[in-house]
Amino acid sequence: MSKLRVTIWNEFVHEKKNATVQSIYPDGIHAAIEAGLNELGADELDITIATLDMPEHGLTEEVLNNTDVLIWWGHCAHGQVEDAIVDRVQERVLGGMGFIVLHSGHFAKPFKRLMGTSCALKWREAGEKERLWVCNPGHPIAAGIEDGFIELEQTEMYGEPFGIPSPDEQVFISWFEGGEVFRSGNCWIRGNGKIFYFRPGHETYPIYKNPTVCRVIYNAVKWAAPQGRWVEPLKAPNVPVDQAREKITAKGGSLHAEGEAGFR
Amino acid sequence: MSKLRVTIWNEFVHEKKNATVQSIYPDGIHAAIEAGLNELGADELDITIATLDMPEHGLTEEVLNNTDVLIWWGHCAHGQVEDAIVDRVQERVLGGMGFIVLHSGHFAKPFKRLMGTSCALKWREAGEKERLWVCNPGHPIAAGIEDGFIELEQTEMYGEPFGIPSPDEQVFISWFEGGEVFRSGNCWIRGNGKIFYFRPGHETYPIYKNPTVCRVIYNAVKWAAPQGRWVEPLKAPNVPVDQAREKITAKGGSLHAEGEAGFR
Amino acid sequence: MSKLRVTIWNEFVHEKKNATVQSIYPDGIHAAIEAGLNELGADELDITIATLDMPEHGLTEEVLNNTDVLIWWGHCAHGQVEDAIVDRVQERVLGGMGFIVLHSGHFAKPFKRLMGTSCALKWREAGEKERLWVCNPGHPIAAGIEDGFIELEQTEMYGEPFGIPSPDEQVFISWFEGGEVFRSGNCWIRGNGKIFYFRPGHETYPIYKNPTVCRVIYNAVKWAAPQGRWVEPLKAPNVPVDQAREKITAKGGSLHAEGEAGFR
Amino acid sequence: MSKLRVTIWNEFVHEKKNATVQSIYPDGIHAAIEAGLNELGADELDITIATLDMPEHGLTEEVLNNTDVLIWWGHCAHGQVEDAIVDRVQERVLGGMGFIVLHSGHFAKPFKRLMGTSCALKWREAGEKERLWVCNPGHPIAAGIEDGFIELEQTEMYGEPFGIPSPDEQVFISWFEGGEVFRSGNCWIRGNGKIFYFRPGHETYPIYKNPTVCRVIYNAVKWAAPQGRWVEPLKAPNVPVDQAREKITAKGGSLHAEGEAGFR
Repeated sequence: MSKLRVTIWNEFVHEKKNATVQSIYPDGIHAAIEAGLNELGADELDITIATLDMPEHGLTEEVLNNTDVLIWWGHCAHGQVEDAIVDRVQERVLGGMGFIVLHSGHFAKPFKRLMGTSCALKWREAGEKERLWVCNPGHPIAAGIEDGFIELEQTEMYGEPFGIPSPDEQVFISWFEGGEVFRSGNCWIRGNGKIFYFRPGHETYPIYKNPTVCRVIYNAVKWAAPQGRWVEPLKAPNVPVDQAREKITAKGGSLHAEGEAGFR
Repeated sequence: MSKLRVTIWNEFVHEKKNATVQSIYPDGIHAAIEAGLNELGADELDITIATLDMPEHGLTEEVLNNTDVLIWWGHCAHGQVEDAIVDRVQERVLGGMGFIVLHSGHFAKPFKRLMGTSCALKWREAGEKERLWVCNPGHPIAAGIEDGFIELEQTEMYGEPFGIPSPDEQVFISWFEGGEVFRSGNCWIRGNGKIFYFRPGHETYPIYKNPTVCRVIYNAVKWAAPQGRWVEPLKAPNVPVDQAREKITAKGGSLHAEGEAGFR
Repeated sequence: MSKLRVTIWNEFVHEKKNATVQSIYPDGIHAAIEAGLNELGADELDITIATLDMPEHGLTEEVLNNTDVLIWWGHCAHGQVEDAIVDRVQERVLGGMGFIVLHSGHFAKPFKRLMGTSCALKWREAGEKERLWVCNPGHPIAAGIEDGFIELEQTEMYGEPFGIPSPDEQVFISWFEGGEVFRSGNCWIRGNGKIFYFRPGHETYPIYKNPTVCRVIYNAVKWAAPQGRWVEPLKAPNVPVDQAREKITAKGGSLHAEGEAGFR
Repeated sequence: MSKLRVTIWNEFVHEKKNATVQSIYPDGIHAAIEAGLNELGADELDITIATLDMPEHGLTEEVLNNTDVLIWWGHCAHGQVEDAIVDRVQERVLGGMGFIVLHSGHFAKPFKRLMGTSCALKWREAGEKERLWVCNPGHPIAAGIEDGFIELEQTEMYGEPFGIPSPDEQVFISWFEGGEVFRSGNCWIRGNGKIFYFRPGHETYPIYKNPTVCRVIYNAVKWAAPQGRWVEPLKAPNVPVDQAREKITAKGGSLHAEGEAGFR
């Protein structure tokens, strides 16, 4: 069986600028996630790293065409992601690429693009306790989680309302020590692509060194793996009259000359 | 009871440039829709017209803040709609404004923004017959439709695949003489706003002079009327530690100084 | 404007058998809910009471045909509800009647019937604190709730996983003092009917005397009010060949004689 | 890799009673489906046959516990399926078993149970042409379908309205020669199980000998294969106070003695 091709995208900014973050993730958050995934399935996964400062943010046509699942971490530099790259990520997700968005990625451009909503939420940085409850104990993304929950001693809080379309499947909901709740593991399908948003994070805590968190990301990678491809999902083809499946003849006025493309 | 405030947006281009369109809609498609709505509920509706060539495309903050339901017609000039106006329409829909998108509006910027998908489809301009079947005979948008279907003698064909998120409710599906089908009446909720896409159209046929088509748009206006408002849906407020509902104390590293806004 | 016809169904068992419940709800839970609704909209609502011990549980064809929204409370006597009445409730919901299910009604026969899933959950009776967070501040069911949450000092706990189909809209999620979370305000559409499940309750606490809880039920009644009726939603009509919209002639073998009903 | 365990359930009545059906399916519809699946993946599939007249309709605890995907054909004998078997099928689907329902199975008890709706539709037996359009060309269930559609020269017609909950994913919509349309390939998730309804059929035409129809069923089997199991999805466990994740003490009245089961 061929390996699943995973690309981990990291804006890779805070790790170079903030001392706390640097001490936790000296090689970048992407390196921690890569290590966590390899721990669980080095034989099954073929991992590529892409960062903001690479040409085309590391997400060239070639890289994305050879990516089965894209993992996204971003926080302080969302605005620096080029729209052309956002277009490309969106097209690939609609075509079938899996897309896993972590924590502060709720405001990442490609996530907002695919959701169509505000993706806004409430937040508090107090290093408080979070408990993620499993809403479907048989869900492949929750595989291997004992007792029906994950506990994280220190996290940033995200609270409802979370400005998202209703999830197709709810995998986790979080309880916070300070009294809030949050839809923290959410699945959607858009076009032919599976999208998973997973809340835990914040770069000032060693979240992505937690084996259960890594297990969830690993599970999500396998869940989101494409089972088919919608080639050119953005195409809006004209069907010529003589190629209609039922015999018809054109009648009435028309705007387009024969063979002309439609408006966009 | 106060009137429902409806804004009809029309790019208003083909009616001034194409002789066929001009002969059918000499005063613009918006005028035909306005007449159709007034025929059914002049006493209940307060209608405003907005067009592409007005300042801010006629969709100023003031106009949108006083709009309950926005109807959108656009075709050849989608690309000329300013992104700032698209942002504003999206924010108002998330806040609760109803949004009714007609025919070629499937490629309108605010519709694509809210869907997050390609919104692409197949098409053919042959003036063929379309029959829209009602999928829920009790749905308020289908009120007053006899026999469970609408027949239109001449329409442009739109065919599946239609690149949309799965509709929350399916009100109509179309059958075409040339052999295709299409999800032609689709409901979604995004944020607090109700969205309805209604397929029939094409400016070279007198679709918006058809009383049943106008009836559906009228029904959709009433269905999409806001029942509440999500004020400032884009806000992502910080909850200070001392305002947490449960007593907590901050521990661990943090990225943000107190009171600082989050990243976008 | 004609009044909204609301029927409150209560199994009305614990109030007659358990001293604690009796002291809180001497006239029955239905009476408390009725009082709460009348406090907010006596002029708009026409309320009928139905209980398990009435003939046909008080839900005759006539009562249901004259009900716009049915509110359901049941707990220890779910099993005593006749299947014929469940059939009738289901048919009316599919036809357009609103259906509001409270607390332990998660295991009520008509709710399980309409959901198709287990409707199971975790629970604990410790009189602990619950905080229901609003997930959509503009939602009509959340109208009038201050600060984005409801706090109840003493409730029974219900915890995830909750065995339901993914809600069409999430209005509330609960946080519990003991550490759990729960999807506590959930909307679905089935057929032409709107369904709202609202979690707070337990007959040993005065939940339905809380004005905010009553406000939510009142809001839900208005939200669930039918906007149309799907008459005879269970009918599966044959379309005779000569009544097809397109001219066809029968060819090939057939199982049914002309005019014969289909199998069920 | 271990084989996927598929059980084909057939009521197996018309094939023994009706001469036309017998001539097309002398060994039963199940045998045709089995042959079609084996043609495509004999090495991957381990197929069991179950029929109405077997003890427990062939769907014993043991058979269902060893079934990954259940395919269901029924028509004239829906009413003879025991409710205890329906309960069992439902529990297994909620636990993760895939469930593929064919044609007249729209009125099968376990399908109606899982949908919660009428599952009613319009129908006509005229041997007319059907064309199933693919709504998502990259969907695994549509793999291998050329040109975006399937054409069947002779089928029974099913028409909208189809009384189902909105599908999570729309894979096919049908066009009929006589003028109707139908949602003919629909996906849902319930609990942890994937459900696919596939319309083509009617026992008086050799539908299940059509290689493309068999290909779709084969694709659906692979799509619906469980990726995890929700063990005992019907359980509603009590969480004792001393096992709460956060320290609480019981206060206030309670209905249940410690350790007592909840009401159903």
